[in-house]
Amino acid sequence: MATIIPLDINRRKSIATALSNLTALVADDMNAVNQLIIQRMNSQVALIPHLAGHIIAAGGKRLRPILTLACSQLCGYAGKRHHKLAACVEFIHTATLLHDDVVDASDLRRGGPSANALFGNQASVLVGDFLFSRSFELMVEDGSIDVLRILSHASSVIAEGEVLQLTTTNDSTTSEQAYLEVVRAKTAELFAAACRIGAVVASRPASEEEALRTFGLNLGIAFQIIDDVLDYSAEQARLGKTIGDDFREGKVSLPVILAIHRGSEAERGFWHRTLDDADQREGDLRHAQDIMHRHNTLRDSIDRARHYGAIARDALGFFPDVPVKQALLDIIDFTIEREF
Amino acid sequence: MATIIPLDINRRKSIATALSNLTALVADDMNAVNQLIIQRMNSQVALIPHLAGHIIAAGGKRLRPILTLACSQLCGYAGKRHHKLAACVEFIHTATLLHDDVVDASDLRRGGPSANALFGNQASVLVGDFLFSRSFELMVEDGSIDVLRILSHASSVIAEGEVLQLTTTNDSTTSEQAYLEVVRAKTAELFAAACRIGAVVASRPASEEEALRTFGLNLGIAFQIIDDVLDYSAEQARLGKTIGDDFREGKVSLPVILAIHRGSEAERGFWHRTLDDADQREGDLRHAQDIMHRHNTLRDSIDRARHYGAIARDALGFFPDVPVKQALLDIIDFTIEREF
Repeated sequence: MATIIPLDINRRKSIATALSNLTALVADDMNAVNQLIIQRMNSQVALIPHLAGHIIAAGGKRLRPILTLACSQLCGYAGKRHHKLAACVEFIHTATLLHDDVVDASDLRRGGPSANALFGNQASVLVGDFLFSRSFELMVEDGSIDVLRILSHASSVIAEGEVLQLTTTNDSTTSEQAYLEVVRAKTAELFAAACRIGAVVASRPASEEEALRTFGLNLGIAFQIIDDVLDYSAEQARLGKTIGDDFREGKVSLPVILAIHRGSEAERGFWHRTLDDADQREGDLRHAQDIMHRHNTLRDSIDRARHYGAIARDALGFFPDVPVKQALLDIIDFTIEREF
Repeated sequence: MATIIPLDINRRKSIATALSNLTALVADDMNAVNQLIIQRMNSQVALIPHLAGHIIAAGGKRLRPILTLACSQLCGYAGKRHHKLAACVEFIHTATLLHDDVVDASDLRRGGPSANALFGNQASVLVGDFLFSRSFELMVEDGSIDVLRILSHASSVIAEGEVLQLTTTNDSTTSEQAYLEVVRAKTAELFAAACRIGAVVASRPASEEEALRTFGLNLGIAFQIIDDVLDYSAEQARLGKTIGDDFREGKVSLPVILAIHRGSEAERGFWHRTLDDADQREGDLRHAQDIMHRHNTLRDSIDRARHYGAIARDALGFFPDVPVKQALLDIIDFTIEREF
């Protein structure tokens, strides 16, 4: 299978450094955030820091709190409020990860649980609830009703998006529009809130809040589309990463939707069996990849992501040319061209 | 098996009317709250009002929002803010009910799921998250940072209590103190917050806030102890209610803890097998009830509950003798002597 995105070596290098550049610009702040996270996820109930620490340590890029810090810097903010609020954003993200991993009763009846095996459903749900509540406690300490409004609304929308996603799972008739609505709600809304908070703490005018919201929302949509692409990527498989999780779970993501819409009757029969009926056999993932390759749906999904990246790019137009601005622009490219 | 609490017929009647008396005193407010609940649990994602409506409709006594309304009335509050906040309290309670019902992976492997069969784990978790987030949105609309502080803290403590309960489940060495800490966190803290909010909306002095917190906390502890007693009650079984849920789930509640501490070696072996090893057979529930009866642990658990009821009673001492005060005092008796 071909490489998804052929890029020259210099471009690839600059993309690889985009995340480390942005991280370096907010490194001191991020240290403070990490300390807060460790401090505030603590509890006398030992299982809580144990489980929360497990997922937060494994938690990868910390992209969302980094965005809060970077957008605060972009707005010229010089205080420390953004540390607590970046921790809030990470707590909400971690809580949704924990809740995402809950295995359904019906799934279990079909076989063993793959996710969430370590601690069980109940602990994951409850520790997620704890982190979520703790996040609101941190916001209350900060005291801004505007921040509380933004993040409580984002939390509602995320939950709605997750429920909407449940109803599109195992439904191969899911439209691209329904997919986009799920992505916007379950992923992009938190990116939008994370960025917007930068303008709120810096007391910047509504137009800048709105610009950062637009930046975050569209970056988030691009991010999720690429996540969904990577789950079928031959590159990923070559890097030793697990692929095919979405396929196995019957998620109807963009590369699949395009393949279904462009496919032959026989192909639609395949999608119907594997997704709607959840009847999957040896070699089906490989066959799904072949169909996607035939219809260029990974490449075209990336093109769709680029569209949202372009909107995110323009949203930063108002802001002065400080170093963090370029780093945020590079993060758009990183989000789209990344291999992890 | 004997009746747990022999009461004369008049006393029994006055207890039965305590809840309807209190409900009648806040009836207009409660209508407004019910409308708000229906309105604000709505979502474009149809599964959300469907599932939330199911649990809210089944939701029983609405004791927590009634307490918010009654305590507001006790504090002489004449506005409408308490409607929204009572809805918040009910949303948080409903979210925790939904999350409580999540079946663990390990439970499923031992058999089929009994709870939560209708919608599945995932939908329950996500709709719970939605109600929880919606609750914070309502608080933000109300705009009081004090209310936000009280309810975000209560939410954290509830989650901690639920996790703590997980760690005591299937552990027959659980102490009475550990049990009380679970009860206080998972149940009583929300009762305390629900009551305290009455003083907050009415802008009453800190001493009244504190008095209502004490009332609610101790009422909540009594309420949960009685709930745990009723789960083994022969009366309940006679009324056609399901009993033994806690036993089957391996919950180590107060009547069990007392039985374990007072028991013979043989009895401890029984508890060890049925609770720690979760090895339960036909007739075990009946045998558990027999052991409890032998050691009077249901009766003595009710006595423990009366202690907390007495604290709750004295906490209302400061307040003027308005009708709602007597109704709240009667609710303490109802909580302890109820059969449902």
